[in-house]
Amino acid sequence: MIIDCHGHFTTAPPQLAAWRERQLAALDSPSDAPDPAGLRISDDDLRAAIEPNQLRLMDERGTDLTVFSPRASFMAHHLGDFAVSAAWARICNDLVHRVSTLYPRRFAMGAMLPQSPGVDPATCLPELRRAVEELGAVSVNLNPDPSGGRWTAPPLTDRSWYPLYEALVEYDVPAMIHVSTSCNPAFHTTGAHYLNADTTAFMQLLQGDLFADFPTLRFVVPHGGGAVPYHWGRFRGLAQALGGPRPEDLLGRNVFFDTCVYHRPGIDLLMSVVPSEGVLFASEMIGAVRGVDPLTGHHFDDTRRYVDATDRLSDEQRAAVYAGNALRVHPRLAARLAASGR
Amino acid sequence: MIIDCHGHFTTAPPQLAAWRERQLAALDSPSDAPDPAGLRISDDDLRAAIEPNQLRLMDERGTDLTVFSPRASFMAHHLGDFAVSAAWARICNDLVHRVSTLYPRRFAMGAMLPQSPGVDPATCLPELRRAVEELGAVSVNLNPDPSGGRWTAPPLTDRSWYPLYEALVEYDVPAMIHVSTSCNPAFHTTGAHYLNADTTAFMQLLQGDLFADFPTLRFVVPHGGGAVPYHWGRFRGLAQALGGPRPEDLLGRNVFFDTCVYHRPGIDLLMSVVPSEGVLFASEMIGAVRGVDPLTGHHFDDTRRYVDATDRLSDEQRAAVYAGNALRVHPRLAARLAASGR
Repeated sequence: MIIDCHGHFTTAPPQLAAWRERQLAALDSPSDAPDPAGLRISDDDLRAAIEPNQLRLMDERGTDLTVFSPRASFMAHHLGDFAVSAAWARICNDLVHRVSTLYPRRFAMGAMLPQSPGVDPATCLPELRRAVEELGAVSVNLNPDPSGGRWTAPPLTDRSWYPLYEALVEYDVPAMIHVSTSCNPAFHTTGAHYLNADTTAFMQLLQGDLFADFPTLRFVVPHGGGAVPYHWGRFRGLAQALGGPRPEDLLGRNVFFDTCVYHRPGIDLLMSVVPSEGVLFASEMIGAVRGVDPLTGHHFDDTRRYVDATDRLSDEQRAAVYAGNALRVHPRLAARLAASGR
Repeated sequence: MIIDCHGHFTTAPPQLAAWRERQLAALDSPSDAPDPAGLRISDDDLRAAIEPNQLRLMDERGTDLTVFSPRASFMAHHLGDFAVSAAWARICNDLVHRVSTLYPRRFAMGAMLPQSPGVDPATCLPELRRAVEELGAVSVNLNPDPSGGRWTAPPLTDRSWYPLYEALVEYDVPAMIHVSTSCNPAFHTTGAHYLNADTTAFMQLLQGDLFADFPTLRFVVPHGGGAVPYHWGRFRGLAQALGGPRPEDLLGRNVFFDTCVYHRPGIDLLMSVVPSEGVLFASEMIGAVRGVDPLTGHHFDDTRRYVDATDRLSDEQRAAVYAGNALRVHPRLAARLAASGR
């Protein structure tokens, strides 16, 4: 079995973007905000968005199931206030829930949260609870920088985040640490901001001891952990000097890196330095990098080829990276599969 | 010959930090600012700061010469205004100049610039000219984020930076792209901000076509290029989609990564994906990571061991990484060595 723990609904029907445009156009006059009920997307629209795109590629690449969340770059928590984010998160979560209902064997829902810069993260609890309890979310995307590249939020070890962590622990649901669009011209969204956020979040976790307070809390740091595996010696050395948690102890227990690294030497490195129990297969397909690598003739984001090819994994380890680790990190997904006899 | 292109005066005599403290204490009352002439550091003080530290390690590790610039984390361009940065840069540059004069065969000067957030980069030209013409600087450190982690400056491709680039081209002097201390609690200085800046700067260079305007301009992106080599496929794919310069074409011509990557697998990856003519040996020793790696029994920052050991370089390529590339990137260093018969 192969589980892709990192997919976003990047191909949503155009009605969604049109609704969002109307919402953003009304930022200064909330009474003009569009009615969420006015967004009409049929099941056929969803099938037409999914089947020739994610589902086709999953079949071609042999991926059984994708943890599927709203488009990361569209979360744009920096736009508008909490009410704007709340309406937007609800709509986006409802859509990925519907995809997971249309294709229950192929997609499991990941939720976005209605974060807003400067707003108490605890305000996200109702949507988090709705997503898990009513929509069946098995994972939640947590944005460490709701300001969109201004980085005004406190580190992830700050107690203001704790109400979210308490709920995640209660539900036994992991958080993927994932930023959204950068509104800072210094940071290209997918070429700088995403990777910087991964690196930044991991370093924050070395500066504190968050998992002493939440021993069962689990974070997936996407895009292969940002710069961390390449600079594994730096992080080990910094952790040693800080006297806090060791990178090698966090990985596989509380922190997991995905395999969204778009070339074979990067995957080889990841598998060389990070304990394999700390790695989850993922592609973020139809995402940041959609082209074909002229050197290989295959899509850059066809990460299965690199994971299949790497000689740094035993067969047992490879199976764990493909599915076993993901099931351990996402117990609600494991329970759902068990209940359906898989 | 082995040239370390990335060293900072992290062990400066304590009088320097004391002077800076007095300067910062007077930020709100400039008339109380200390007189630069009041800073007394003797040649013996400098020898005592250098000989048991950088020079000892250079001898132990077999490094012939270090490009030696003011302590990066102390540049702190975000503190005070331009006048504060101007006085501080002058003092710090004078000190590394004196080190290079005391040990002309072992240290060549790199300069810091008196950048200040929101201030026109052209204001740095007088100090840049003084550093090159009077102090013999062979390299300059350019901070892409003088705000110290707020990232308020425009990308490096912005025309506001052009006056500096014109001077660098005129002098045939490279710039190392190096941030300073982060004042943003989200970013650990050496574990997040430094690496993020490397990644961010490189991505900025893919978004524009700076080197079409400055074909001979050369940037050293330190710390192994941040996250770039690990995500080489991502950057190649993004560049392909953007239609701008290709990473593999920038490297070795206008952009160079150093070898400040503190473990062997990271160096192996660097040498696997980046053309070897685009890599300069460096350690940033007595810097971010000063400890001993319990797995190897050697200092994390003893990068010579990794470069010596990697099997991804031919002898000829290794010699170029150790010295040939650095001499090509730093013609003023090459000229100085030639003049002294080396």
